[in-house]
Amino acid sequence: MTHLTIKDIAKYSGTSVSTVSRVLNNHPDVSEKARAQVMQTIEQYGFVPNNSARNLVIRESDTIAVVVRGIANPFFTRIIKTIERAIYSAGYSMSLHQIGSCEDELMTAAMVEREKRLRGIIFLGGRFNYAPADVAMLRVPFVCCTYANTFGALERDSFSSVAIDDKREAYRAVRLLLERGHRRIAALIETEGGNSISQLRYEGYRAALEDAGVPFEAALIECAGSFEMEDAYRAATRLQERTEFTALFAISDAMAMAAMKSLADEGKRVPEDCSVIAIDGLEMTNYCVPTLTTLEQPAEEMALECVRILEGLLQGDGKNSHVFMETRLREGTSVLSIK
Amino acid sequence: MTHLTIKDIAKYSGTSVSTVSRVLNNHPDVSEKARAQVMQTIEQYGFVPNNSARNLVIRESDTIAVVVRGIANPFFTRIIKTIERAIYSAGYSMSLHQIGSCEDELMTAAMVEREKRLRGIIFLGGRFNYAPADVAMLRVPFVCCTYANTFGALERDSFSSVAIDDKREAYRAVRLLLERGHRRIAALIETEGGNSISQLRYEGYRAALEDAGVPFEAALIECAGSFEMEDAYRAATRLQERTEFTALFAISDAMAMAAMKSLADEGKRVPEDCSVIAIDGLEMTNYCVPTLTTLEQPAEEMALECVRILEGLLQGDGKNSHVFMETRLREGTSVLSIK
Repeated sequence: MTHLTIKDIAKYSGTSVSTVSRVLNNHPDVSEKARAQVMQTIEQYGFVPNNSARNLVIRESDTIAVVVRGIANPFFTRIIKTIERAIYSAGYSMSLHQIGSCEDELMTAAMVEREKRLRGIIFLGGRFNYAPADVAMLRVPFVCCTYANTFGALERDSFSSVAIDDKREAYRAVRLLLERGHRRIAALIETEGGNSISQLRYEGYRAALEDAGVPFEAALIECAGSFEMEDAYRAATRLQERTEFTALFAISDAMAMAAMKSLADEGKRVPEDCSVIAIDGLEMTNYCVPTLTTLEQPAEEMALECVRILEGLLQGDGKNSHVFMETRLREGTSVLSIK
Repeated sequence: MTHLTIKDIAKYSGTSVSTVSRVLNNHPDVSEKARAQVMQTIEQYGFVPNNSARNLVIRESDTIAVVVRGIANPFFTRIIKTIERAIYSAGYSMSLHQIGSCEDELMTAAMVEREKRLRGIIFLGGRFNYAPADVAMLRVPFVCCTYANTFGALERDSFSSVAIDDKREAYRAVRLLLERGHRRIAALIETEGGNSISQLRYEGYRAALEDAGVPFEAALIECAGSFEMEDAYRAATRLQERTEFTALFAISDAMAMAAMKSLADEGKRVPEDCSVIAIDGLEMTNYCVPTLTTLEQPAEEMALECVRILEGLLQGDGKNSHVFMETRLREGTSVLSIK
């Protein structure tokens, strides 16, 4: 059976790839004229203008895989949504693969690559320490989304990444607490010393204290052992039993929300008795009481940038690149100035 | 190239399909002996015991698709995790497809079915009103997860479903408020009169009031227009500007959390000035202050039941069935007795 690509249809109908994509995906924002042109082309070449045509025109070799590690991460939901839309608009199809946080995203990607003859891969979340041998089995371009493989040993021009600078953003969050007069600032992290986002954000915390001349105190650090709210809640409780502090930096919004609950259960008011700040900018922490002050990751922009880089690589006019995006301070009511 | 199925390997190695699956997926809970047997068989038949073997043994025709509608629904994350594990344990592979809440899950499923020669489909979220013509294009068994196609016209033995009885559970939630002395009970719903989960839960609200002899009052109903927290927040604010009430029933946890924020912003304390109850049992509402009293859906059990039904259908020893599961009351601190 003849396979028309989305590009063929664009050419024959005198429209663009993204217009054809929108028509085939039933997007509302297509002019009636363009829709008619696309439909006419499809009919003319013998394809019915419905989902089976759509099935035929998107060939398997137009597939970009999105491999999501850490299915429970609510931050990823927003990113996936935007990535999906951008992939379709660029004329590709998307194959989504969610893996547990202990599984190996590279193995999954290599398997999927063989099965589906992928064009490219976007890793959403992953290990921070790939070595060249690890990625040798991948034969298509890939973009690391939300991490920059900081602890790894890959050649910088052999892959792409779009992320925030975790260390710098943690530094910003803690500096904000320092600027508002806090000196005893606790840190709620996942684990110390790992090759992870937790370590990077922890390093930012330490750098901010150091630059402000505030001595580091080990008693103010507590490891939750995971990013789960349940574990973060218990870690925050241990922290309060052990020492006093006027502010808490949590490495993620979800952990901060659990910590605020722990503070409330211990009879402390946020922010009067303890200020709380985090990084992520989830929707839910905009609706808790008090709302969380947090550095919001630009989810949509990161998603679009990943697809843009991959599209450039696939079309031959782009090259691997590494983009750090900045967070935006979303001021809630969880931080008090005590100056 | 020869394709060994997972069943072949189980047979040749004298183990079970689920053992082979666990070995291939690197699950920890496999005895060393069983692992050695499986590995030996794989090597004997010329396959290397790594992911490329795994790739070969899981044939495309062993694929079960999970089509998720409403990617932003945090309740689905837990369900997907369990479904995925159960599908692999049963010796099948899973293909995950997320679609927007306005897209048609049946079309997506039909496309995927053709592309991947599916064995079966699990719909996670979907329209409540399928007609026989709508599903005619599906040629494999399917299970509706979290909805029972209540407003549809399908023969009951032509499909399966696993859900909670939304009307009955809403009835339970509102009856709890009535039993604790509330009479002016507001309802925060998505939309009135649609063929949706919102309508079923709204009917449960009305039935509970009616059975308790509490006259219905239209001013106490507010439609958010969506399930989004942003819209729920605004709807809760409109409700408070219009009328007085001592308790609020929200049709979902996320909407309840947004409503609690709106109550706080209007200077009302939960539960002293207004009690709040909902249905879902999300993790986040267990960490907000106050914690939400809610009817928790048995996510894991629902997921396992879907796969169990589908597995029975595929093995030929099961038949289509419809299972209603019960929620569990998760008592938070958001409901006050005013008797």
